[in-house]
Amino acid sequence: MSSQLDRPRPKIVIVGAGFGGLQCARRLANKPVDVVLIDRNNYHLFTPLLYQVASSLLNPSEIAIPVRSVVNQAPNVRFRLATVNGVDFSSQHVQIIDGADIHYDYVVLALGCATNYFDLDPERHGLSGVKDLPEALALRNQVLERFEVALTEQDDEQQRQHMSFVIVGGGPTGVEYAGALAELFRRVLVHDFPDLDLTRARVVLIEGRDRLLIDFPSPLGDYARSRLERLGVEVRLKTLVKGYENRLVSLDNGETLPADTLIWAAGVKPTRLSQELTLPRAVAGRIEVDAYLRVAGQERVYAIGDMAAMQDASGVLPMMAPPAMQAGRHVADNILSDIRDQPMQPFRYRDKGIMATIGRNAGVARIGRLKFRGFPGWVAWLLVHLYFLIGFRNRLAVLFQWGWNYFYYDRPIRIITRTEK
Amino acid sequence: MSSQLDRPRPKIVIVGAGFGGLQCARRLANKPVDVVLIDRNNYHLFTPLLYQVASSLLNPSEIAIPVRSVVNQAPNVRFRLATVNGVDFSSQHVQIIDGADIHYDYVVLALGCATNYFDLDPERHGLSGVKDLPEALALRNQVLERFEVALTEQDDEQQRQHMSFVIVGGGPTGVEYAGALAELFRRVLVHDFPDLDLTRARVVLIEGRDRLLIDFPSPLGDYARSRLERLGVEVRLKTLVKGYENRLVSLDNGETLPADTLIWAAGVKPTRLSQELTLPRAVAGRIEVDAYLRVAGQERVYAIGDMAAMQDASGVLPMMAPPAMQAGRHVADNILSDIRDQPMQPFRYRDKGIMATIGRNAGVARIGRLKFRGFPGWVAWLLVHLYFLIGFRNRLAVLFQWGWNYFYYDRPIRIITRTEK
Repeated sequence: MSSQLDRPRPKIVIVGAGFGGLQCARRLANKPVDVVLIDRNNYHLFTPLLYQVASSLLNPSEIAIPVRSVVNQAPNVRFRLATVNGVDFSSQHVQIIDGADIHYDYVVLALGCATNYFDLDPERHGLSGVKDLPEALALRNQVLERFEVALTEQDDEQQRQHMSFVIVGGGPTGVEYAGALAELFRRVLVHDFPDLDLTRARVVLIEGRDRLLIDFPSPLGDYARSRLERLGVEVRLKTLVKGYENRLVSLDNGETLPADTLIWAAGVKPTRLSQELTLPRAVAGRIEVDAYLRVAGQERVYAIGDMAAMQDASGVLPMMAPPAMQAGRHVADNILSDIRDQPMQPFRYRDKGIMATIGRNAGVARIGRLKFRGFPGWVAWLLVHLYFLIGFRNRLAVLFQWGWNYFYYDRPIRIITRTEK
Repeated sequence: MSSQLDRPRPKIVIVGAGFGGLQCARRLANKPVDVVLIDRNNYHLFTPLLYQVASSLLNPSEIAIPVRSVVNQAPNVRFRLATVNGVDFSSQHVQIIDGADIHYDYVVLALGCATNYFDLDPERHGLSGVKDLPEALALRNQVLERFEVALTEQDDEQQRQHMSFVIVGGGPTGVEYAGALAELFRRVLVHDFPDLDLTRARVVLIEGRDRLLIDFPSPLGDYARSRLERLGVEVRLKTLVKGYENRLVSLDNGETLPADTLIWAAGVKPTRLSQELTLPRAVAGRIEVDAYLRVAGQERVYAIGDMAAMQDASGVLPMMAPPAMQAGRHVADNILSDIRDQPMQPFRYRDKGIMATIGRNAGVARIGRLKFRGFPGWVAWLLVHLYFLIGFRNRLAVLFQWGWNYFYYDRPIRIITRTEK
């Protein structure tokens, strides 16, 4: 059709279909490049609502969007369900487990991050995570099962231990999950278990620093704490977990908390693959990138999102969805500029704010310089999360679930189910 | 409050929260008896729509209703999540794995049935079932994964084998799942996999007898066959599966079909627990019951649903939801009569009909003596299934999913997910 036909279209491989990778792929849709988007799951996960799957409020499919459904309108974007084993930067190949290497002209690394359990071993110590869909479903099962077990327990102390849930980490995930659990117990399960005294169920939220939501303005963290305490959550600040043996959580002040369930939401680290890449590091194992989000010392290698130490004037950006999404689009534009021999633009994060919810009618939000809390914060949280969910259908479905829960105090998804028997 | 206080309330234990057991429990709600309803799952499963979970159309929670949410308005009905190990009829106790025995005055056995794999071993041969929720979710994963595998397969024959699905059993489950798979491939996955020739995907439906839907009037079985063939399903009648080794299905006519996936919907048998009970048997291992649904030779022991050889003038009743539901309510009434020293009534099944759907806009139904097929049969199927779903919310949610699929030709639940990693 045009002289463009003479030169082969540059091939861009994007590793990871999280917030950064997916935005990058969408921005490159229908552009004169060939894109291969790789993920080990066939879905993009809207992780900010994962805690609602773990508390019987949402279905997995409402926050897990098939990647193919997002990109199947763009003939130049191909999805590959595969696990990446490494990247050969000299020969420009992405290595796939059980598959042929994939050549790239540009590669965008968007691997996210993994949970940092520090000295604990999640398998051996029986910790629950809330970072991916299998973990959220396993946690939903665990929570519901503990009450079934408590129901037939004769011993009072044992019964209380079955109904005790310790959450480690006072960031948004820990705060939001603590609120969601407290409401699940006091609003829903209380009707399901008339023979159990649900006021004896414990939710303990443990944070090492001196307030919750450390990335928020400090009055909002204080508000979150008082709201959680009104819901019956025990908040322990300036407290560290030292170990978890025989269903006893040991704290650094010498205290022990008997609890069948320990939920770990306290820290992240680079993924195994990210750790294995021979690339320069900035803070906390995150990959060093320049202002254009190129990996230092590499040609045509970009890193974005949680795995990269993306910077702006205020310092290294937080590991959250908005910087990743903006970086994904920015990298797409920069690659297109580079292909056209135009100058790339430095990445500038437009900070629109941060927010968290603490149960029904209560939220905290910083939007620009404005602070909201209580009902306005909660409404802001709802609208923003609905807006950023991909797909009209998912927005409708989530709105339906939230509305049902709001008006009927009901969580109909409290089923214990497994894929494998 | 009344003289009733002097005598202890009779205790009725219902084993199984399927269609029969749950109806029995609901009928006994708020009656002067104590009811314990036991199931190994915390949900009641609306099995007629299970094939829609296995074909990415419905969420598990839309057909799995928490048993506690159904009975938690009745203070005299208690649910127990437990696996029953046996029944001691002489001492009148139900035995629980890892729990104390439960005494009963009356016991209602409603155990359902299990898949009969005949000479094949589902584990060793890698067969897929579609009888419970874990199986349906595993099958959904398997179907979606096969196309991901096919995408990178270079060998033409291998690729076709990955995309070949053999369904054994031409009853309602096999017919409905064959139609649902064919539509999933040709209407949905065709857009997700532009690089695959989806017309090469095979769905083969195998039935031993000379027509499909043997329990339906014969013109309806013939119609189902022609509809399925129009959808591209290969229907093989008078054909038996002899074996399945190395992904090759061997048929009794000597032919072999290469297929990664073999779905078994060809026959049922008593559950392990039912087999172990020392009770008299009628046909096919089903428990012999009298006209009042009491187990022959036992006092205050009732058996209902698929596990029991319930009879009326037309002979042994089919293993379907409607007879089980009616029997559940009938047994509840008979037990209440017995407690009041009033005569029990013999069970009479009111046959309202049978129906099945074969993809979009096509169904078959016998309602009383009337036969419907095509669009009227499909509408009848929709209305009846929505009506019998428990709970206004589930009806709304399923209607939403069906409507979305109908108008957008989309199945948004095509995610591959596991509970365990």
